[in-house]
Amino acid sequence: MVLRGDRFTSDTDELVAKFTESISYDQRMYKQDIQGSIAHVKMLSRQGIIPAEDAVKVENQLKDIKLLIDAGNFEFSEKLEDIHMNIESYLINKVGEPGKRLHTARSRNDQVATDVRLYIRDEIDEMDEMIKELEKVLVTVANDNKDAILPGFTHLQNAQPVLFAHHILAYVEMFERDRTRLLDCRKRLNCCPLGSAALAGSTFPIDREFVAKELNFESITRNSMDAVSDRDFVIEVCSALSIMAMHFSRLSEDIILWMSQQFSFIDLGDAFCTGSSIMPQKKNPDIAEITRGKTGRIYGALTSILTITKGLPLTYNRDLQEDKEGVFDAIDTSKMVLAVYTKMLETIKVKKENMLKSASDPALMATDLAEWLVKQGIPFREAYYQLQSLVKYSEDTGVPMNELTLKQMQKSVPGAKEECLDMFRPESAVNAREVYGGTAPKEVARQIQFWQNRLGI
Amino acid sequence: MVLRGDRFTSDTDELVAKFTESISYDQRMYKQDIQGSIAHVKMLSRQGIIPAEDAVKVENQLKDIKLLIDAGNFEFSEKLEDIHMNIESYLINKVGEPGKRLHTARSRNDQVATDVRLYIRDEIDEMDEMIKELEKVLVTVANDNKDAILPGFTHLQNAQPVLFAHHILAYVEMFERDRTRLLDCRKRLNCCPLGSAALAGSTFPIDREFVAKELNFESITRNSMDAVSDRDFVIEVCSALSIMAMHFSRLSEDIILWMSQQFSFIDLGDAFCTGSSIMPQKKNPDIAEITRGKTGRIYGALTSILTITKGLPLTYNRDLQEDKEGVFDAIDTSKMVLAVYTKMLETIKVKKENMLKSASDPALMATDLAEWLVKQGIPFREAYYQLQSLVKYSEDTGVPMNELTLKQMQKSVPGAKEECLDMFRPESAVNAREVYGGTAPKEVARQIQFWQNRLGI
Amino acid sequence: MVLRGDRFTSDTDELVAKFTESISYDQRMYKQDIQGSIAHVKMLSRQGIIPAEDAVKVENQLKDIKLLIDAGNFEFSEKLEDIHMNIESYLINKVGEPGKRLHTARSRNDQVATDVRLYIRDEIDEMDEMIKELEKVLVTVANDNKDAILPGFTHLQNAQPVLFAHHILAYVEMFERDRTRLLDCRKRLNCCPLGSAALAGSTFPIDREFVAKELNFESITRNSMDAVSDRDFVIEVCSALSIMAMHFSRLSEDIILWMSQQFSFIDLGDAFCTGSSIMPQKKNPDIAEITRGKTGRIYGALTSILTITKGLPLTYNRDLQEDKEGVFDAIDTSKMVLAVYTKMLETIKVKKENMLKSASDPALMATDLAEWLVKQGIPFREAYYQLQSLVKYSEDTGVPMNELTLKQMQKSVPGAKEECLDMFRPESAVNAREVYGGTAPKEVARQIQFWQNRLGI
Amino acid sequence: MVLRGDRFTSDTDELVAKFTESISYDQRMYKQDIQGSIAHVKMLSRQGIIPAEDAVKVENQLKDIKLLIDAGNFEFSEKLEDIHMNIESYLINKVGEPGKRLHTARSRNDQVATDVRLYIRDEIDEMDEMIKELEKVLVTVANDNKDAILPGFTHLQNAQPVLFAHHILAYVEMFERDRTRLLDCRKRLNCCPLGSAALAGSTFPIDREFVAKELNFESITRNSMDAVSDRDFVIEVCSALSIMAMHFSRLSEDIILWMSQQFSFIDLGDAFCTGSSIMPQKKNPDIAEITRGKTGRIYGALTSILTITKGLPLTYNRDLQEDKEGVFDAIDTSKMVLAVYTKMLETIKVKKENMLKSASDPALMATDLAEWLVKQGIPFREAYYQLQSLVKYSEDTGVPMNELTLKQMQKSVPGAKEECLDMFRPESAVNAREVYGGTAPKEVARQIQFWQNRLGI
Repeated sequence: MVLRGDRFTSDTDELVAKFTESISYDQRMYKQDIQGSIAHVKMLSRQGIIPAEDAVKVENQLKDIKLLIDAGNFEFSEKLEDIHMNIESYLINKVGEPGKRLHTARSRNDQVATDVRLYIRDEIDEMDEMIKELEKVLVTVANDNKDAILPGFTHLQNAQPVLFAHHILAYVEMFERDRTRLLDCRKRLNCCPLGSAALAGSTFPIDREFVAKELNFESITRNSMDAVSDRDFVIEVCSALSIMAMHFSRLSEDIILWMSQQFSFIDLGDAFCTGSSIMPQKKNPDIAEITRGKTGRIYGALTSILTITKGLPLTYNRDLQEDKEGVFDAIDTSKMVLAVYTKMLETIKVKKENMLKSASDPALMATDLAEWLVKQGIPFREAYYQLQSLVKYSEDTGVPMNELTLKQMQKSVPGAKEECLDMFRPESAVNAREVYGGTAPKEVARQIQFWQNRLGI
Repeated sequence: MVLRGDRFTSDTDELVAKFTESISYDQRMYKQDIQGSIAHVKMLSRQGIIPAEDAVKVENQLKDIKLLIDAGNFEFSEKLEDIHMNIESYLINKVGEPGKRLHTARSRNDQVATDVRLYIRDEIDEMDEMIKELEKVLVTVANDNKDAILPGFTHLQNAQPVLFAHHILAYVEMFERDRTRLLDCRKRLNCCPLGSAALAGSTFPIDREFVAKELNFESITRNSMDAVSDRDFVIEVCSALSIMAMHFSRLSEDIILWMSQQFSFIDLGDAFCTGSSIMPQKKNPDIAEITRGKTGRIYGALTSILTITKGLPLTYNRDLQEDKEGVFDAIDTSKMVLAVYTKMLETIKVKKENMLKSASDPALMATDLAEWLVKQGIPFREAYYQLQSLVKYSEDTGVPMNELTLKQMQKSVPGAKEECLDMFRPESAVNAREVYGGTAPKEVARQIQFWQNRLGI
Repeated sequence: MVLRGDRFTSDTDELVAKFTESISYDQRMYKQDIQGSIAHVKMLSRQGIIPAEDAVKVENQLKDIKLLIDAGNFEFSEKLEDIHMNIESYLINKVGEPGKRLHTARSRNDQVATDVRLYIRDEIDEMDEMIKELEKVLVTVANDNKDAILPGFTHLQNAQPVLFAHHILAYVEMFERDRTRLLDCRKRLNCCPLGSAALAGSTFPIDREFVAKELNFESITRNSMDAVSDRDFVIEVCSALSIMAMHFSRLSEDIILWMSQQFSFIDLGDAFCTGSSIMPQKKNPDIAEITRGKTGRIYGALTSILTITKGLPLTYNRDLQEDKEGVFDAIDTSKMVLAVYTKMLETIKVKKENMLKSASDPALMATDLAEWLVKQGIPFREAYYQLQSLVKYSEDTGVPMNELTLKQMQKSVPGAKEECLDMFRPESAVNAREVYGGTAPKEVARQIQFWQNRLGI
Repeated sequence: MVLRGDRFTSDTDELVAKFTESISYDQRMYKQDIQGSIAHVKMLSRQGIIPAEDAVKVENQLKDIKLLIDAGNFEFSEKLEDIHMNIESYLINKVGEPGKRLHTARSRNDQVATDVRLYIRDEIDEMDEMIKELEKVLVTVANDNKDAILPGFTHLQNAQPVLFAHHILAYVEMFERDRTRLLDCRKRLNCCPLGSAALAGSTFPIDREFVAKELNFESITRNSMDAVSDRDFVIEVCSALSIMAMHFSRLSEDIILWMSQQFSFIDLGDAFCTGSSIMPQKKNPDIAEITRGKTGRIYGALTSILTITKGLPLTYNRDLQEDKEGVFDAIDTSKMVLAVYTKMLETIKVKKENMLKSASDPALMATDLAEWLVKQGIPFREAYYQLQSLVKYSEDTGVPMNELTLKQMQKSVPGAKEECLDMFRPESAVNAREVYGGTAPKEVARQIQFWQNRLGI
């Protein structure tokens, strides 16, 4: 490894090289590394720390290296350990002395801290767009199936009828919170650590603000020791992605349930399902299952980085090298899930009759009758107990609540009137919930409108 | 249990009561529950949903209940399962019919979602203050020991001399980020779910905005199904506290190292150390150790809530009852750590001579000489290799670098001059790092000033 | 705190006392602490290290203390920090000088290591019995419902008909593995650390084997430094309980699905379900939901202890005090779940008709027809594709497979014969799987017999 | 994908193929997959289920495929999704109809369950050997440095002098427990699931015992539904590796501390250290740091698989595909760490003088004097307090305990005699701990002998 020079008497063991290398996974940050180096070298030149002509040579060569890597024509070497030394070493080979000036006034510690921030910032921006695309599809699915009514569940028990669109918009709310969390994280990491050097700051008259501006950072870090050892943003992004993964796991659970023969509420495009190696009749919602499984992967990345950083003394410790693979995998996984879900949801077919049938159990309208009683002046808790009796009566006699006679009903609900007999339709139940955020078609249409405006659909 | 009424034919098994109860830990939310109920009942009255005189009775009685609980004179019953039913049931016992009207137009699902948000919001506000207190102490410790120089470490190897104050301020940066994370979380949870009812919204003409305003919420939730099943904010606060716990674990590690006989950089007040049951000479930094250990506890709470919410279908599932104990414990633990650390750090005694001795190893100034060479026009990477040779020469001959003759030095560093012999003092090294965020006394003083202004010290 | 003596100049801060105490949760180990002390003091006397009459006084007093605590008449003091000092201090108050000899040749480090091992060993023994009880109930439920056939699921899609008893016995297999894991853990922890003293071993001529035998340990630890800092067994038991929690979460998921109106495969006793605060018709499978939620709690305990022990240098560090609450809670939770599930499962009512109806979809028998073809000499993969065609034909035409004419069938399956028309009954499918471990009634009966013998039902 | 046949109307989306494929990581199980298929096909032939000549063709071709893959000449296709279909598809291409008979009487569900068990079993066997190699090096390091004395630490405070060999052997104990845990896991997973088919068992007259014997399984699974969905062994191996990782993290912490300039207890071979990109003097213990960091990775794998399996209904769900990458990575990482540590520890150089100097602080011998007093008849707790006074006196006066006059000593310790003045040597302290498991040279030598015999050194 370049940095061993002649001070170390024995060569790094090959096994050690394998153990300590990061080039196999940090090469993906080459754009950010080059971007950072160009900003740095410009500043060095501007400040007169290195000759202007050297800076130009370095900058041009770095741009060439970027093109080389873009095209897949750069050979990475494990011996050179990481992306930083791979690029610096190639640069020096090409341009000689000017290349040796590049690392003036910086250290790998502030360099890698900068690269990771830039990389994650870029990825957050991509994910932000992808989440919006997903939201658009969800809103469109909601809008396209405005009249579908299914049972809303609590405890996976039929609870009250809701609009399918309302159910789908609940997920838009979740993903929108995910976006804000990622953006909060972006805001916090958007602060330039370059100039912190190894840990104590540089002795050169550098211009940190200039570099930060070049790299579109909003500010510069205030403490060099913190700057080189801070990985809060890695944890924070893993945490935000964990919550998003949890949302996907819930949506997946719903989809898997709805796809079961017992629910049979939806169908998905064949391209998003697979068969069995032995059972010819199977059509499995694999995407949803794998997505639910991938929750584990992202939670695992969060656990990893939390474990890694626990109990480390200041400042940089090599343990921190292990910060990358987890967060890279969490980001890759999240983007993959976002992409595939966006496409899959476009193929969803809603089986409205099945949904409605399930939602038509008169017991789901028990609350409505209770609330009608309240409107007649009966205290809620009393109305509630009357309805419990009615439900029990219906269960015991086997007569569905909507087929009871008024007389039968009045045994449990003395104040019942003719109009109560007609309350057991899911449409009425849904219409009655006109409160802001409720499931009434009018209100749901308003929410769809809100999202369409916001997302520019 | 009240809600079983006469529909359920057998009584809840005692074991089941124990298994399903939450009153043992959710009673701590009584203030928030009462606060929420008062806002709700006021609104019901304002909207003409219940009689005004009933609302007044309920409100007064709720206030009395709060006083009773404040004073420890309220008897909680496991049979009544949770804080909501304990209070409602007592209320009904006291005021009769008006009490039975309280639960009109709401469900436990939106009620508990409201209570937890209010509770966590209050706790965030308290922690915010406590973090500021801790920061003040840290800034004061830094200011009181401005002249102490210790080795800055990377890889727990002496790296470069830094100011002790600079090291301490690194932690202020971390805790300040923790504050912003908690406040972002606060912002996101500060949205009122009341009115979402069980899952589908209420059928009553309620005024959700009024309730939200009464409870100082900034907005109301947009989707009832999301509102009753959303626990993102619980995860988010656990995540923010996990990162803070990690910061404490790092500070603790530093303190434990500094307290070891081998470092001997600091001493702590006796009141914050304990002895051994068998070794009479021991003075152990238990607070720091226990704090480092408590990281596990808070990470555990995060793991719990992430696991609990994974794969749940919409909307409310009883699994979510398990959301509380973890986050309550994480908050309690964090507040305890904040309190005890704030007091402990006030007793820190800095052993400046020991620090300085450790920082005076001339090898720590190798970078400075390399950078001096760069300033003479030698490319950095070349200067770096010259210094590596010099370090090796010093190690091989056993002559410390600051005791080498100019001749000896020039063997490795041909461009060395007389002035180089004088570069091996930690004070020089520290002074040289005047860059913004660097460890130079001037710069550190500026940062101390910044924090003093910000914190109003 | 007793151990501070007069060396520490200031009293422990009250907050510090609260922060460092463990008496609030380690008092539950009083039996084990006393048991260990009695074995220790007997040995000290036998070896002539302390006077025989002192040992007798100490032993008698310790027995009294145990009775006092049993009866709830012992006052624990937070000032005395932990269970060890609470008991030792009371002992000395009562018997004077002999009491001061108890701690000869041991340290809190080996004492607590012993107590925790004894405590967990006892708990494993209890859980072992409880798991067996649960298995008995499961086997009985299987036996009582031998003729129930339901669809077996993969991907939550109907796959092939299976016996309900077969499904239930799958869980017996899981819980049986849990037992073996706990017993492996027991075997490994059953090794006595007493005599390791603080970390380096005792200077007294103690008889470690005698103490181990008194406490029913199988062996003694070989290395004192390892012995006082080893918490592997805490992690291992949390890991075994995590796997068991995962099994319960799967069983709970099945139960919740089966209880949904869409499946409607089972019913549970009213005593094990609860209602809603607003929806009078609800009967929720809360036990299963809460159990599924408690998975998070136990995973959290595992995360905690893994985090706590990460990166600790040898030997004892105070962080290890945090080992207890997590594992205690994991054990308590597991026992609670075992107890409540054992009772709940006794109330399960199987709705055989609903199950059978779901299992009667002819598509579930597609594999059977494919395998029949193989038996006629057609290669499996070819038979498989023929059946896929048949399924598609049936889906496209809307004619269920069991209603196809032989002609129609032969379009996709040329080799089909008259007898194939009769293959679409779930009973045939189930009967055909007579292989060891398969779902044929004969085979399942054999497995029930196996378990009945093993469990002594 | 092969299994889609013509029933699925649209092709799997390319993105979906990428999302659902596992060939990129399950190809590493090709040996086990082929091994399993050969055993299966032999049995099919033996039972007359497929023609003998077909079986021979399949077996021979499978062996050829193995050689092809061994040599890196097999082209894996993402379209064919996984290792099973890649091999089966190639086989059919080569041998035609006989190849189509291979999948008779099995499903991918039992096939993959078999492969993973075989794979992990092989890896456990390899790790078992590697752990033994590591133990040998540790025992040899202990044996080569028998006379080195360093301070034993509790709370990272000097506690009592111990032999370096004793400290090292503590790790042998830990790693030995790791071996037994892995072997317990091996024992439990060594049970053949083949014959369970998709979930319900096969309809063919297969001989499961024969297959199990061919594959060296000790038994066959008892319940087909459990067999295809059981991943307990994946969790269990991740848990065992997590504990081992924790042990490595502790050893790493010790090494990092010992390598610091403040401790300076050891040196490591240059090949196992690296430098800094900016500080020419640095020699960092990177292996130990990265290893400590890798703890996070392995804990993360455990979290993943626990999360994945939580709450899945029976039987196989596609989520389970996510079981592999985590455990593969945990195994690879563990093997890498084992290999590199075994080599690194061979280069350890012990700086005995520095160790001894640190261990010579007379305060470390305070317990010895206390125990001497006890041997004179003074109760331990009293002796302890006398020594606390003595320590305080020494601290207050600044006179080290070994330089006190007898008179001075007697102020705190009235019973002190001339011989007490000579008790403050670390050698005496070490020698005094002759108890089994103690740090006396005689006892440590015995333990070294024990391990040498056991490991065949």
